[in-house]
Amino acid sequence: MDFLRVAGAQIDLTVGDLQANAARIIEAMAWAEEVQADVLLLPELAITGYPPEDLVLREGFVTENIAALHRIAAAAGDTTCVVGFVDRSGTVKPDDAGHARVHNAAGLVQGGRVRGIYHKVLLPNYGVFDEDRYFAPGTSPEALWEINGVVAGVSICEDIWVPDGPPSRQAAAGADVLLNINGSPYHRGKGREREAMLSERARTSGVPVVYLNLVGGQDELVFDGQSMVFDRDGGVLYRAAAFEEELFWVDVPLADEGATGVAATFVSGGDLLEGEPEPPPESHPHPDEVEAVYRALVMGLGDYVRKNGFSGVVIGLSGGIDSALTAVIAADALGPEGVWGVTMPSRYSSTGSVEDSRALATNLGIRFSEISIEPPFTGFLQALGGEWDLGDVDVAEQNLQARARGAILMALSNKHGGMVVATGNKSEMSVGYATLYGDMVGGFAVLKDCSKTLVYELARWRNRDGEVIPRSTLDKPPSAELKPDQVDADSLPPYETLDRILERYVEGDASIGEIVKAGFDRAMVIEVARMVDRNEYKRRQAAPGVKITTKALGRDRRLPITNGYREG
Amino acid sequence: MDFLRVAGAQIDLTVGDLQANAARIIEAMAWAEEVQADVLLLPELAITGYPPEDLVLREGFVTENIAALHRIAAAAGDTTCVVGFVDRSGTVKPDDAGHARVHNAAGLVQGGRVRGIYHKVLLPNYGVFDEDRYFAPGTSPEALWEINGVVAGVSICEDIWVPDGPPSRQAAAGADVLLNINGSPYHRGKGREREAMLSERARTSGVPVVYLNLVGGQDELVFDGQSMVFDRDGGVLYRAAAFEEELFWVDVPLADEGATGVAATFVSGGDLLEGEPEPPPESHPHPDEVEAVYRALVMGLGDYVRKNGFSGVVIGLSGGIDSALTAVIAADALGPEGVWGVTMPSRYSSTGSVEDSRALATNLGIRFSEISIEPPFTGFLQALGGEWDLGDVDVAEQNLQARARGAILMALSNKHGGMVVATGNKSEMSVGYATLYGDMVGGFAVLKDCSKTLVYELARWRNRDGEVIPRSTLDKPPSAELKPDQVDADSLPPYETLDRILERYVEGDASIGEIVKAGFDRAMVIEVARMVDRNEYKRRQAAPGVKITTKALGRDRRLPITNGYREG
Repeated sequence: MDFLRVAGAQIDLTVGDLQANAARIIEAMAWAEEVQADVLLLPELAITGYPPEDLVLREGFVTENIAALHRIAAAAGDTTCVVGFVDRSGTVKPDDAGHARVHNAAGLVQGGRVRGIYHKVLLPNYGVFDEDRYFAPGTSPEALWEINGVVAGVSICEDIWVPDGPPSRQAAAGADVLLNINGSPYHRGKGREREAMLSERARTSGVPVVYLNLVGGQDELVFDGQSMVFDRDGGVLYRAAAFEEELFWVDVPLADEGATGVAATFVSGGDLLEGEPEPPPESHPHPDEVEAVYRALVMGLGDYVRKNGFSGVVIGLSGGIDSALTAVIAADALGPEGVWGVTMPSRYSSTGSVEDSRALATNLGIRFSEISIEPPFTGFLQALGGEWDLGDVDVAEQNLQARARGAILMALSNKHGGMVVATGNKSEMSVGYATLYGDMVGGFAVLKDCSKTLVYELARWRNRDGEVIPRSTLDKPPSAELKPDQVDADSLPPYETLDRILERYVEGDASIGEIVKAGFDRAMVIEVARMVDRNEYKRRQAAPGVKITTKALGRDRRLPITNGYREG
Repeated sequence: MDFLRVAGAQIDLTVGDLQANAARIIEAMAWAEEVQADVLLLPELAITGYPPEDLVLREGFVTENIAALHRIAAAAGDTTCVVGFVDRSGTVKPDDAGHARVHNAAGLVQGGRVRGIYHKVLLPNYGVFDEDRYFAPGTSPEALWEINGVVAGVSICEDIWVPDGPPSRQAAAGADVLLNINGSPYHRGKGREREAMLSERARTSGVPVVYLNLVGGQDELVFDGQSMVFDRDGGVLYRAAAFEEELFWVDVPLADEGATGVAATFVSGGDLLEGEPEPPPESHPHPDEVEAVYRALVMGLGDYVRKNGFSGVVIGLSGGIDSALTAVIAADALGPEGVWGVTMPSRYSSTGSVEDSRALATNLGIRFSEISIEPPFTGFLQALGGEWDLGDVDVAEQNLQARARGAILMALSNKHGGMVVATGNKSEMSVGYATLYGDMVGGFAVLKDCSKTLVYELARWRNRDGEVIPRSTLDKPPSAELKPDQVDADSLPPYETLDRILERYVEGDASIGEIVKAGFDRAMVIEVARMVDRNEYKRRQAAPGVKITTKALGRDRRLPITNGYREG
């Protein structure tokens, strides 16, 4: 039986680092050569990293990425490698801002040369994607390539999501196999969603599909890997690991006779391997949903810290669940030696706050410090004494405490290195229950897209094999501890209700009327919606965090700050 | 001679405030009826405000804006009104994220009804624009409308920027007049650029052009008005005011005989006014470039404060030029009673800092307070004493001072209302010479897109009729005053050099090599480029400011934080 040996390099690249990315690619190519792969797939925009954003508007950057493609091609041997890069368009006129238009492209390199180039046809421009800003669409969706006698269709990411997109057309035109390279970011549940779509695509077109995804974190995005190979009945031949780098190869059985009289661009004229195909390696299972979120957070934070050159992180520990989970994720991402937990009690802190923080630090084996905010807080009150009556503890005094903490964490970061990680969750960030320049301080906010409800689920999951996060942290009612006997429930609806409203309002773009119809109290829904709307200004100054839902608070959701809309 | 009386409502609307916008539109329509206008032009997306961003993804919002269009139509009399709104598409399928596609539309309303709808064809998706994210392009670029026997082409903003765009095609198809409604944001020099393009469009097509622009501030954008009417030779019949609301009408002479046999949708069948056209009102002059920037800043800050419901602003006064200019702009935007200047000396402040701040406040007639940061600064050092040696004053101690100031300003804002205005300029923000959560604190950063060089020009311009900003503030060398005898020149190239490098690197996307070729020292260019690149994280957490250049630090410039690109 004829088969094509297809290799995949599911690797973690760095946006902009053309030299390092090219080196990693060449390394993977050498490996593919060793395992005698006919084809090696590398991620979408592998050379530039994904997404390169406005770097693509720099002519010099595009030039250097093309130079890197030619260096990569020079290193290519018998294996045909499909590698993502930014191609300059020879035909499309500059955009109205005067930028030369470029393509999101896949280069086919083999035997020391660039043998062919495919341009992505379908450009996503919704959610986190801005590809119309950068790329001109390709105009050859049906292009086919002859690789060792096998006719292959090559496509890029979005191309395969649309039922009648380029891969379907390539199959109809005679492709024996469909090769699709990706930079497909994770959100909760996307692995199964993607697998169902790809299986359908293989089954409907009757052609095997090889899907190669990027892995790693880039600012708000995490690419989950989970590359997959499907036979022509839509069955999964192989599923690669989630949230890990992996080099894999699979012998993909081909139909007994390929299409004849198919016009394909000649790429390479080697012979297929003879004999029977090797059975594929054992597939990695789909991770459980909560586990997948947790691993996305670990990878997102870890890559942000490493790729930005930080030695470690500094985290304020309040004794509450958010900061505890943040510290655990950080320790899992960077090792305990990369995490410094700091508890900063005030006159309103419970003794449990310090004890629980210390217990957590001990459980994790991280560095731990206790720094009282009383001296600066008192200093602030003294400095401001002339301006107001100190008898009252209102939001101004509460925020001053949070800001004293923020300044202390930043001072530790400035003095010793290490990036501050903000600990806020999506529920708080949505309704603005957070202090700008206070607990929002930090270079990265790992839980920013996790609702409070999900934070508890993640904490319980992480504690599954023993208590890492102290029991009392999980059990105590959430509190900011910024005034006597304060609990979150004083200011907010219960989180289980709040989170269900927010899911509809923030992620679902539902109207107040629709949410009320789903069974929620109208006054509460209106109040929540108002809180979300009027706190856009805080979110605009928030640190980035890991996207794990279909709509994160960041580039995914672009609302005006100045916004007079009140549903009526 | 036949003429069309065209009215324009260059008005300041609020994004999202459908009720208030509709009321303002109906008011303008009543006025147009009174002056017997044949046609009234209202801004692009007048009903929703521009740009509505992701509000457009809310089905309920689109439904309400269409309901507003019908209320507006019900109020329409003899005058045909062209009003921007978001139209739902009957034909275009939902995008891949499942959102129903909508159009950026112009409704033609008259005699109590919606008589016609035009869909914008050319959708800008570069710079600050994301219209491909929201809108499906119109498919009837050549649509024509019969208004009182005159054949009109209607188009929206970008449509007219392209030489062979919809208006040119409408003219070729027989239009007697071209009506173009806009939400065209300001940048330096854009008024003249726009006028040259429009004059060329009128001259080439041989048809009068009426250009109506929005006015007012919306987050980062300021719309400068400067609506214009051109005769068919490209001559300016009328130029409306810059940065001010204005209702105007102009009798536009028509060619002796219109085209015949032209297929146009019937809108209204009234009679044109008889007799000779009234001469147009006297045109407003082009403002001087520096004056235009100043007025853009005043309008941008003023509208942000008012539309977000703040009673006034709080500004930290350092004695330096940036905070002085910020306070003057704020006083011009909000009146002196809306501005509170606060000087916050430390052990490193010169006596001049406090005196110059006080003199400025006196000149402006604003509220003034002096609050020493010594108590909280000492408190911070005491709290942190265990963590490091206090002998050294490095960036950690410098930032603590800036953060103490930031927290004090925020406390005054929290206690008394009033929004903090950040005072940083574009030079500092580009290279990261600013303290995150310190002097970057604020809801708005009015000078964010103004280079230090421009800040001096603006200050001198504002002082043209007498000293408002103290002489010594203008004369002293720029200094952060965070350690003994510190001046900016210790850490940065001279501003006149720095700004010329930044203009090329940030606004021009030039490569290091290109900048060096233009005559700059290679080591200095590399250092500046590195500073710009590695401070993206600070800018991501910065307050919005007024865009006044072709590329502002905000939605205009979208670079990854994690960015390994080093030109080489």
